[in-house]
Amino acid sequence: MESVNIKKLAQLLGLSISTVSKALRDSHDIGKDTKEKVLKLATELNYQPNPHASSLRKHKSKTIAVIIPEIANNYFALAINGIESVAREKGYHVLIYLTHEDFANEIAFTRHLNSGRVDGVIISVAHTDKDFLHLHDLRKKGLPIIFFDRVCEDFDTVKVTTDDYESGYLATKHLIDQNCQKIAHLCMSKNLSIGNKRLRGYLKALEDHSIQIDNSLIVECVNDHEADLNLVRNLFNKQHPDGIFASVEKYAITTYEVCRELGLNIPADVKVIGFSNLETADFLNPSLSTITQPAFEMGKLAATMLFKALDKKMFELKDEDIVLQSKLVKRDSTS
Amino acid sequence: MESVNIKKLAQLLGLSISTVSKALRDSHDIGKDTKEKVLKLATELNYQPNPHASSLRKHKSKTIAVIIPEIANNYFALAINGIESVAREKGYHVLIYLTHEDFANEIAFTRHLNSGRVDGVIISVAHTDKDFLHLHDLRKKGLPIIFFDRVCEDFDTVKVTTDDYESGYLATKHLIDQNCQKIAHLCMSKNLSIGNKRLRGYLKALEDHSIQIDNSLIVECVNDHEADLNLVRNLFNKQHPDGIFASVEKYAITTYEVCRELGLNIPADVKVIGFSNLETADFLNPSLSTITQPAFEMGKLAATMLFKALDKKMFELKDEDIVLQSKLVKRDSTS
Repeated sequence: MESVNIKKLAQLLGLSISTVSKALRDSHDIGKDTKEKVLKLATELNYQPNPHASSLRKHKSKTIAVIIPEIANNYFALAINGIESVAREKGYHVLIYLTHEDFANEIAFTRHLNSGRVDGVIISVAHTDKDFLHLHDLRKKGLPIIFFDRVCEDFDTVKVTTDDYESGYLATKHLIDQNCQKIAHLCMSKNLSIGNKRLRGYLKALEDHSIQIDNSLIVECVNDHEADLNLVRNLFNKQHPDGIFASVEKYAITTYEVCRELGLNIPADVKVIGFSNLETADFLNPSLSTITQPAFEMGKLAATMLFKALDKKMFELKDEDIVLQSKLVKRDSTS
Repeated sequence: MESVNIKKLAQLLGLSISTVSKALRDSHDIGKDTKEKVLKLATELNYQPNPHASSLRKHKSKTIAVIIPEIANNYFALAINGIESVAREKGYHVLIYLTHEDFANEIAFTRHLNSGRVDGVIISVAHTDKDFLHLHDLRKKGLPIIFFDRVCEDFDTVKVTTDDYESGYLATKHLIDQNCQKIAHLCMSKNLSIGNKRLRGYLKALEDHSIQIDNSLIVECVNDHEADLNLVRNLFNKQHPDGIFASVEKYAITTYEVCRELGLNIPADVKVIGFSNLETADFLNPSLSTITQPAFEMGKLAATMLFKALDKKMFELKDEDIVLQSKLVKRDSTS
């Protein structure tokens, strides 16, 4: 069978060449019905894209960038392993950029990624981000961008997260079930959507169990170890919480440090649960109850979606929220 | 005073221009006496290198590469933070490449680094490395390379390590002092010089304390968690050691896992010490005695030495072993 080109498809369908072209690369601009019509005929007539046709981008670097806020965190270590497992299969290199939670670093990196250095970007944003213009600029240059974990909600692309709201609810409910009445939440920056979702889950669980919300029990940590130790010390000295829900792995460890210092027994005096992928959670004294994120899978999925875009002639990442489930692991710190 | 150029210096010294040029950039090809003579006259005559003179390399990428075997390891996380602290000051980006201990990956990365992608490389080699031709090739292309922690001993450049032999001795002696008589060593690949040094320290400590060396107590882990669990299980079931010296952080955690599984009490039944920068070492059950490496400082120093080379017009990294001291931290796992 003679193969057809886009022009021929357009003629047969009574559509413009541009519409057919966009439909073939699954563009937002084209309605679902039109897309289906185009794809049906293209399949019937054995349409094959011309490999020499001009393309908006050329994938030459065989490299993708992963931008993350920090490295000393088991969640990101595992997520990167997930990303690399896909990249390796595709013969791609992975470059890792650490923002250290610094907005200026993130902007500098995205500038650095221009001009063909990488073919795509997977990012978990810094909590200090004031806006996302730098990422919009990057996408305008033709780079597909995918978010994971810490996402920019207003950016139309694939976002891979975990069920932060439900997990926040679950962690708090678990503390309530264990008879905690004065539950503090150590949260990350309110700039971050995942931080807000976890906080909202916490608030809703309290509300559902008729526990009065007390803002002095909500402590926004600042990502500086000494400063965070002080914040948690103050919390214990002034508010005497009987339960701690830590939004981030390291805040749970900070809580262990402060409890040891103040002579408080976990779980007798205070129960602790935290979001964590800490490998040693089970060997801590006491073992730490956690909300464990599917970190490896999240990285793997983010990379899979990125390569789906890269494998197409012209990428078009649809706005899509992919939400994987975290799990509650009950251990001695809440028993 | 009128400044002189290299040609003038060569004339005055009766040397070739090439010899003077090499002496000024501290080349291996030139003897110590000649270098001193050249430098003395250059200083006396206020020789200033011409900033517009041709240079072998141009530092344009404002980027350095850091190649490490793995990311889920607190040592490397801290070392990278050390490297970045220097790079940030210099306005440089840091790209991180993970080899996952795979020789082929390391070779592929070094090829990828050609052609001006980066200005310099800091590397901790994969334990599967069969040779270092890929690194020699990279250097021939004009890239300065610095090793840290896992070094290639035959490569003439700066190598930043810790006192692995002494620390291996110290860890083993500590177990002997705590009345262990059957001390096993969980070691990393014998391909790695640091692994060998730690092993030699272990052997020497046994010898100095008249303890018979038993090769069945020396277990080379293979860097696959399930396989390593099996190796350690076998060790306990067959040899019944009363002390474990783990050469790598994760082997200590593997030991904790196996001891729990077999119902062995640490430290009553077996004492455990490991090289580790684990943040939670102090909160483990029992808290883990460690040899703690100055990871951040090692990274910082490696980067400082690299930028010293980059700041010169033409780099020439001298063969130099910089050895920082690790420290023994005694905790409950050996008490």
